Amino acid sequence: MPKYKLTVEYDGTDLVGWQKQPGQLSAQGILEDAIFGLSQERVETVASGRTDAGVHALGQVVSFDLNKKFDMYSLRQGINFHMQNGPVVVLNAEEVSEDFSARFSATKRHYKYVVLNRSSVPVIDKNRVWHIASPLDIFLMEEAVEYFVGNHDFTSFRASECQAKNPVKTLDDIYIEEHDFEFGRYIYLEFTAKSFLHHMVRNIVGTLVDVGLGKTKPDAIPGMIAAKDRTKAGPTAPACGLFFMGVDY
Amino acid sequence: MPKYKLTVEYDGTDLVGWQKQPGQLSAQGILEDAIFGLSQERVETVASGRTDAGVHALGQVVSFDLNKKFDMYSLRQGINFHMQNGPVVVLNAEEVSEDFSARFSATKRHYKYVVLNRSSVPVIDKNRVWHIASPLDIFLMEEAVEYFVGNHDFTSFRASECQAKNPVKTLDDIYIEEHDFEFGRYIYLEFTAKSFLHHMVRNIVGTLVDVGLGKTKPDAIPGMIAAKDRTKAGPTAPACGLFFMGVDY
Repeated sequence: MPKYKLTVEYDGTDLVGWQKQPGQLSAQGILEDAIFGLSQERVETVASGRTDAGVHALGQVVSFDLNKKFDMYSLRQGINFHMQNGPVVVLNAEEVSEDFSARFSATKRHYKYVVLNRSSVPVIDKNRVWHIASPLDIFLMEEAVEYFVGNHDFTSFRASECQAKNPVKTLDDIYIEEHDFEFGRYIYLEFTAKSFLHHMVRNIVGTLVDVGLGKTKPDAIPGMIAAKDRTKAGPTAPACGLFFMGVDY
Repeated sequence: MPKYKLTVEYDGTDLVGWQKQPGQLSAQGILEDAIFGLSQERVETVASGRTDAGVHALGQVVSFDLNKKFDMYSLRQGINFHMQNGPVVVLNAEEVSEDFSARFSATKRHYKYVVLNRSSVPVIDKNRVWHIASPLDIFLMEEAVEYFVGNHDFTSFRASECQAKNPVKTLDDIYIEEHDFEFGRYIYLEFTAKSFLHHMVRNIVGTLVDVGLGKTKPDAIPGMIAAKDRTKAGPTAPACGLFFMGVDY
């Protein structure tokens, strides 16, 4: 039975997230319906990671088995034909060995968070950025980043509904880049880790933005981490600024 | 009577363009209604250039007179308050001398055209790019660009409804840049000139894409220009990939 790996882009704005839920619009539901439309087979897809409502993906990776064999061009184009004008599109299809799992074979996951730092609200990038009107001090944010990188118990930065057994994760990197325009700037925060806790990126971003606003000092971060208490850290950044960028295997 | 200059961003997707038209949604109509909402004055705004339906602006410049005097923060925020959740936003407000005209004082105008070159349709950048599925040869496009830059009669690249008296324009530069991703790339074409004919950027882009696809040879461009005949040049690129970036004064 051939196993396939898809790389998928989606606009999370009108979705309840990756995971299918009865009667709701999800990336997984749309994708599995389109696979059925093409193959007449009902499959259960496995994603490299779940994303929340409103979170976007530029490189979600999905694996599944099909009885029918497809060439990679027909599989991609055929699935896309059944998702036309929707919020999900397949960027690439590959046949993989049967022991491949989009979830368990992943060695690194990459997220990007986008902040628009200017007075005026976004129009072109509505639902694609977190709009922060007050000026952010990037140098302070970069100082704070150093405390997050490494192996830590991230209990203070996980959602209460997080199902992971172990709150200890190794955050390989948070890379901050800015792109200046005449009347504002974009701030990109790129996260890399083998895996993340639920809301971990958004909770760290919310805390880093507090640092950038001067509400939290960078050297307060170690205390927040040590507290192992969600209420001691910053707010959860909104979903719309978050992009699931890709996965290494 | 104070004169004001605004820099404005808009999402052209649902607009009939910059210019107001009775009973239709235009950037000018939305902006002038918001200025009225704030000041109770009906003004006639002057833009640096009109944009067509579907064309976006990141830096449209607009001038107008008001009897009331505003500080620049209140003017920007006040107008934006009256355009909340709409497709138009003011990025900056300045008071200018009374002889300033957003249209006639302009010395350079900047446009950017965005092509998404990959197999799969865009989802995140829907209505923000021209999707070209077949691979484009950028080197050929760059070769073709050389023939467009400079002072030419651009009759072959103007819309039939273009109202300019003189079809001779000086195109200062077309700068092509690409941004590669794992499964595709963005191609940015940046245009600079004192002024442009109607559809000039879109008609040149349509022709450059024909070159990139191998349908037209770069050295066919001088003949197209010399023909002074719209039917001899390439197609009009779609509006959704075009961004009005800014104006120099």
